[in-house]
Amino acid sequence: MAVGQLVLPEFNAIAGLRIGTASAGIKKTGRKDLVVFELAEGSNSAGVFTLNAFCAAPVQVAREHLKATSPRYLVINTGNANAGTGTKGLADAKKTCTALAELTQVKEQAVLPFSTGVIGEPLPMEKLLAALPNALDSLTENGWAEAATGIMTTDTLPKGATASCIIKGQKVAISGIAKGAGMIKPNMATMLGFIATDAAIEQPLLKQLLKEATDLSFNRITIDGDTSTNDSCMLIATAKSATVSEADLQDLATFRQCLITVMQALALSIVRDGEGATKFVTIQVEQALNTTEALEAAFTVAHSPLVKTALYASDANWGRILAAVGRTPGLENLDVEGVTVYLGEVLLVEQGGRAASYTEEAGAAVMKQEEITLRILLGRGQVQETVWTCDFSHDYVSINADYRS
Amino acid sequence: MAVGQLVLPEFNAIAGLRIGTASAGIKKTGRKDLVVFELAEGSNSAGVFTLNAFCAAPVQVAREHLKATSPRYLVINTGNANAGTGTKGLADAKKTCTALAELTQVKEQAVLPFSTGVIGEPLPMEKLLAALPNALDSLTENGWAEAATGIMTTDTLPKGATASCIIKGQKVAISGIAKGAGMIKPNMATMLGFIATDAAIEQPLLKQLLKEATDLSFNRITIDGDTSTNDSCMLIATAKSATVSEADLQDLATFRQCLITVMQALALSIVRDGEGATKFVTIQVEQALNTTEALEAAFTVAHSPLVKTALYASDANWGRILAAVGRTPGLENLDVEGVTVYLGEVLLVEQGGRAASYTEEAGAAVMKQEEITLRILLGRGQVQETVWTCDFSHDYVSINADYRS
Repeated sequence: MAVGQLVLPEFNAIAGLRIGTASAGIKKTGRKDLVVFELAEGSNSAGVFTLNAFCAAPVQVAREHLKATSPRYLVINTGNANAGTGTKGLADAKKTCTALAELTQVKEQAVLPFSTGVIGEPLPMEKLLAALPNALDSLTENGWAEAATGIMTTDTLPKGATASCIIKGQKVAISGIAKGAGMIKPNMATMLGFIATDAAIEQPLLKQLLKEATDLSFNRITIDGDTSTNDSCMLIATAKSATVSEADLQDLATFRQCLITVMQALALSIVRDGEGATKFVTIQVEQALNTTEALEAAFTVAHSPLVKTALYASDANWGRILAAVGRTPGLENLDVEGVTVYLGEVLLVEQGGRAASYTEEAGAAVMKQEEITLRILLGRGQVQETVWTCDFSHDYVSINADYRS
Repeated sequence: MAVGQLVLPEFNAIAGLRIGTASAGIKKTGRKDLVVFELAEGSNSAGVFTLNAFCAAPVQVAREHLKATSPRYLVINTGNANAGTGTKGLADAKKTCTALAELTQVKEQAVLPFSTGVIGEPLPMEKLLAALPNALDSLTENGWAEAATGIMTTDTLPKGATASCIIKGQKVAISGIAKGAGMIKPNMATMLGFIATDAAIEQPLLKQLLKEATDLSFNRITIDGDTSTNDSCMLIATAKSATVSEADLQDLATFRQCLITVMQALALSIVRDGEGATKFVTIQVEQALNTTEALEAAFTVAHSPLVKTALYASDANWGRILAAVGRTPGLENLDVEGVTVYLGEVLLVEQGGRAASYTEEAGAAVMKQEEITLRILLGRGQVQETVWTCDFSHDYVSINADYRS
């Protein structure tokens, strides 16, 4: 069960982009598990990928192909991550590209592969290849919603976001889908994201925009601190609407904000659907000396199993919060007397100890809500950063103890 | 339930050291929750303490008193950590020392306070002070076992270890007790340890020995990656037996090994009793370039919730192990093809993927055991390091979600 409402929006269609979805029977028969994106000629694409040394075969191939040429097709399967599969995995990822390239008459390198699911099992190539024509047959500009379902793994609900802005008098649309529910932490943990716009954007700027928006969205969320071998996020610009460039900084700012809105919405929907999540938690660290220490403190609190289990128990256990802040790597010479913590609107900690005005009733009233904001004021600077996480429940253990069986 | 056997040994009495235990009713009536150590005049002591910026009041006072003079008494309470309690907490910790100093006619600074338990509640001073005379009345050289019980929090069993060696023809004994079951990670997480020897050792050497042995014992274990506000470990030398000094390096080596044996036994008993633990896991990283990367890799695997839940499920999920190794901070330019993993005696991973010889049956046979050794060969150097941890179960969530209520 996700925390709060997770409903797919009415996606803005992106001219120049069609999406097809099919059932290949990779892990389960019947479910949609294969998605193909078709990008019009003239589209530009940018990608960010996992930093895990053990990156999956499709990540290696996608990186290599993206360097070589501008993609025309993306092919995504769920049910199997094709990770830890050695040279056979690499060959399978390439074979998938070759097969789709032959069917669509493009260069092999114009196809990028993406996989998510179980690690270490060989990709069932026969099933996958057999379903490619079905995916192509179903290509449509209105394929977003079905694709959002077609890339899910342990997600309980599909995730999508859409927005538009006006650039030079023209409507520019941005739509995106994402998947991910566990193994989520900064640096692109098990998540796939596919975002597209009809704007015309040169590749170097597109890449820069993707990096900036990723840093403010997917790299600010955490479920369990684990980083996946398969994370990938693609941003596509089909060049069917207005041009966004550094020549008009106002337009660029408008577009950037619109992109951040879509990508943050996707990132937050991943947290809301965190494995076993019962709470959606915003952790805001304020009055830090710099961004690094603000983020480190926020993530240290967000990753603490003791804080997460207390959140699950609706226990305003400020001692565990302070203990986590206090062990933040690199938070040198912290004056604990200067630390203040708010739980929602309730002053929980002042001068490094429980606030005189705090009552268990006031704390409990905040903690029993599904959405909780924790503000930690370090009292030593001006910088503020926010990360989003969820609690740690019995269901998290069940989901991850039973996943392979 | 602890993993494996956890039975208190027949402690070697340490001449010059007496221990008393009493019931103060700090959190629960009836249970032993107050322990006093009495050190003969001429004893030397060394301490290591939590690195958490939010260190508890007793830690601050113990550090300060230890700098000022050589301790004659240690007073330890469980049920309340006296942490996050501000200036009142500091005053309470000092008042405890003053009271015991008055009863025993020593200087206030010759008394060191230690507390463990709930964070953020004021210490129930009346109850604590009222029980001090009872603790003194019960002082005995054979007080180790009762004290081991008297310092427990969420521990399910008391923890102790004892050993002896021969120095200059004389028997030198070392005995110790420890507590801790959660919030355990390197740098002295919620644990208290009290170790004593009848050897005569100068303070600077004693401190060095304590640091070395702590690095090889308590700083190599992890339950959940959280570091406590109260961790303290004391090493006492009563000078009633042979002298250990740098004048005889062979003697020093003998004593050091004996000390490491006792402290590792204490550390491992903490892991065996990890909150909710059902498996005792040894993680050995080999063929690393240096100690730092070996330990980082071992702890990254040991802290991964996905690895820990897989261990709980007896699932030989090598993909999660590799994913954790791959995201080790500072493990630059890892050649994943060079990585080998053994599960017990079973070759699980070779050349960065599942070993050709591996079978699920062979893996399952190892995973169903209570004690599991994971060997991760990085294939890039000569250094080997070991850490110990446990799995992550439903009971961990239950214990920590319900602790305050």
